[in-house]
Amino acid sequence: MARWEGNTRGRLERAALDLFTEQGYDRTTVAQIAKRANLTERSFYRWFSDKREALFGGGEELEEAFLTAIAAVPEGAGPLATLLTAFSTAAEVFRPRAFLRERAAVIAANPPLQERELVKLASLSRTLTAALVDRGHDPATARLATDAAMAVFRRAGERWMTDEDADYTALLAASAADLLTILAEEPTPSPRP
Amino acid sequence: MARWEGNTRGRLERAALDLFTEQGYDRTTVAQIAKRANLTERSFYRWFSDKREALFGGGEELEEAFLTAIAAVPEGAGPLATLLTAFSTAAEVFRPRAFLRERAAVIAANPPLQERELVKLASLSRTLTAALVDRGHDPATARLATDAAMAVFRRAGERWMTDEDADYTALLAASAADLLTILAEEPTPSPRP
Repeated sequence: MARWEGNTRGRLERAALDLFTEQGYDRTTVAQIAKRANLTERSFYRWFSDKREALFGGGEELEEAFLTAIAAVPEGAGPLATLLTAFSTAAEVFRPRAFLRERAAVIAANPPLQERELVKLASLSRTLTAALVDRGHDPATARLATDAAMAVFRRAGERWMTDEDADYTALLAASAADLLTILAEEPTPSPRP
Repeated sequence: MARWEGNTRGRLERAALDLFTEQGYDRTTVAQIAKRANLTERSFYRWFSDKREALFGGGEELEEAFLTAIAAVPEGAGPLATLLTAFSTAAEVFRPRAFLRERAAVIAANPPLQERELVKLASLSRTLTAALVDRGHDPATARLATDAAMAVFRRAGERWMTDEDADYTALLAASAADLLTILAEEPTPSPRP
């Protein structure tokens, strides 16, 4: 059992994901999740505001880890380098790959969970852009760098989930290189046909 | 009066935006929107499934315009060039700048509208990625190119809204160049401090 699964929140996340997978997201109640985790509903609501949130508990840890890592990046680093350096700490707080794969499948099958994921990613983007602005980057550059970094983060995450041996920092670098290739080949729109 | 404001849908969009701005999104009902537009509630529901949708009516036209433009891009064009070429047709279906600025302010002030916008943009992204895959690009490249293009689209849109004299195709090119600069300076994460 991974370390995070030993704590209350981890047990609730595991129970929620198992039930969503076994019987469907719609048919699962908070009471069932708590029971499966051998905890009370009251415990559930100490950690999560609703059943959707049980799949997004890792988001707060990620955001915290990113902000701590950004604060440690030397002054003068470029905005994208700053974010990718911070992201390279993410593997330490990621849930196990098998959990993340199951989670991704449940999210893909349930529009309410997809919406919540979009909201969470948008919130993370805002936090990262604000952190870059705090470091002195202009807001437009900070936002573009965040969009680029989030594209790299998504791509690296997909590859990390499916490749058991991958090094996460190497995947970030490779995904950033892929994005650069796409941008570098065609920096401007071609004339309309 | 702009051409789109003369039709039923345009009148409903205009009425909805005016009421959201004047009295708040929460306090506005579909009945009020229809009344302001001199139309019936029945007319409203012919065009929109709920009051939130009244601010996103332009999305379908955009998507349609993009797909038509993508189909006209010569085979062999790169994935980002394909999308940016398609985006360059967008100015023709954009609502007037003043409308878009008011709309952006209402969305920024109302989380339910922000969520709907995220869902709409994610749906547009999926459509564009699928269109690239149909043209023979591999899915991972198609998705990364779409993420890059959406970052450029967002940035160009912000600039277009505030600069009355801007040429939209030029803004797309300039925004893509800005994104390239960010990527090119730092293609890989720097080592952790």
